[in-house]
Amino acid sequence: MPTTMSDNFLDHVNFDGNGLVAAIAQDANTGRILMMAWMNREALAATVAKGEAVYFSRSRQSLWHKGERSGHTQKVKEIRLDCDGDMICLQVDQVGGIACHTGRESCLFRILKDGQWHTTDTVLKDPNEMYS
Amino acid sequence: MPTTMSDNFLDHVNFDGNGLVAAIAQDANTGRILMMAWMNREALAATVAKGEAVYFSRSRQSLWHKGERSGHTQKVKEIRLDCDGDMICLQVDQVGGIACHTGRESCLFRILKDGQWHTTDTVLKDPNEMYS
Repeated sequence: MPTTMSDNFLDHVNFDGNGLVAAIAQDANTGRILMMAWMNREALAATVAKGEAVYFSRSRQSLWHKGERSGHTQKVKEIRLDCDGDMICLQVDQVGGIACHTGRESCLFRILKDGQWHTTDTVLKDPNEMYS
Repeated sequence: MPTTMSDNFLDHVNFDGNGLVAAIAQDANTGRILMMAWMNREALAATVAKGEAVYFSRSRQSLWHKGERSGHTQKVKEIRLDCDGDMICLQVDQVGGIACHTGRESCLFRILKDGQWHTTDTVLKDPNEMYS
């Protein structure tokens, strides 16, 4: 019996040995890269079904609906897959304008200058408030 | 003897169990995400020293100066580190306008639409020409 290409988009993703694929969230309006996290098959399927980013938390080993506690969900406008299928890129509307658990817009708030990392972003919201 | 925070920027990067950190290259002019690859400590140091992206090839298990064969090097304008230190983001000028080994501008040339991946980018250069 000949094999046929799967019609399930999930089968085209190259999940790694741990069943994970890297996922980048990029602000759909500004183009700023907000964060990187991981998705398993279930997380990617949930992201598509919900229209909001659902990652897989490696520390908790469970699905992580981004913003479920802080309210800072990510509305997904576009999903892309890279050439070798091991990276997903989401274009998102970041609710509340805060993607980082430190209360900053982006997790990429450190820039390398003269051989040192410098913080470029201010904390927009106290993390204690975000997760209370 | 009290421990002091290292002044070496490399010591602030959270290399994983394989000694690697994820590295995203973003076009400094358009904001488009071009690719994701990996860096070890030596690759990141070489990237800073050269001002061009040097990754670590997991398949070849060696340093990979991006563009060394194709000429499509990446001039690094900015390097950022994320909150937990396990992702690097490079702002680059992509020489030749082609980051992907398939001859496309970006590796993220597939978009999810109606449950299927669709190719959005044309091949700008035949890969056989790129690597001959």
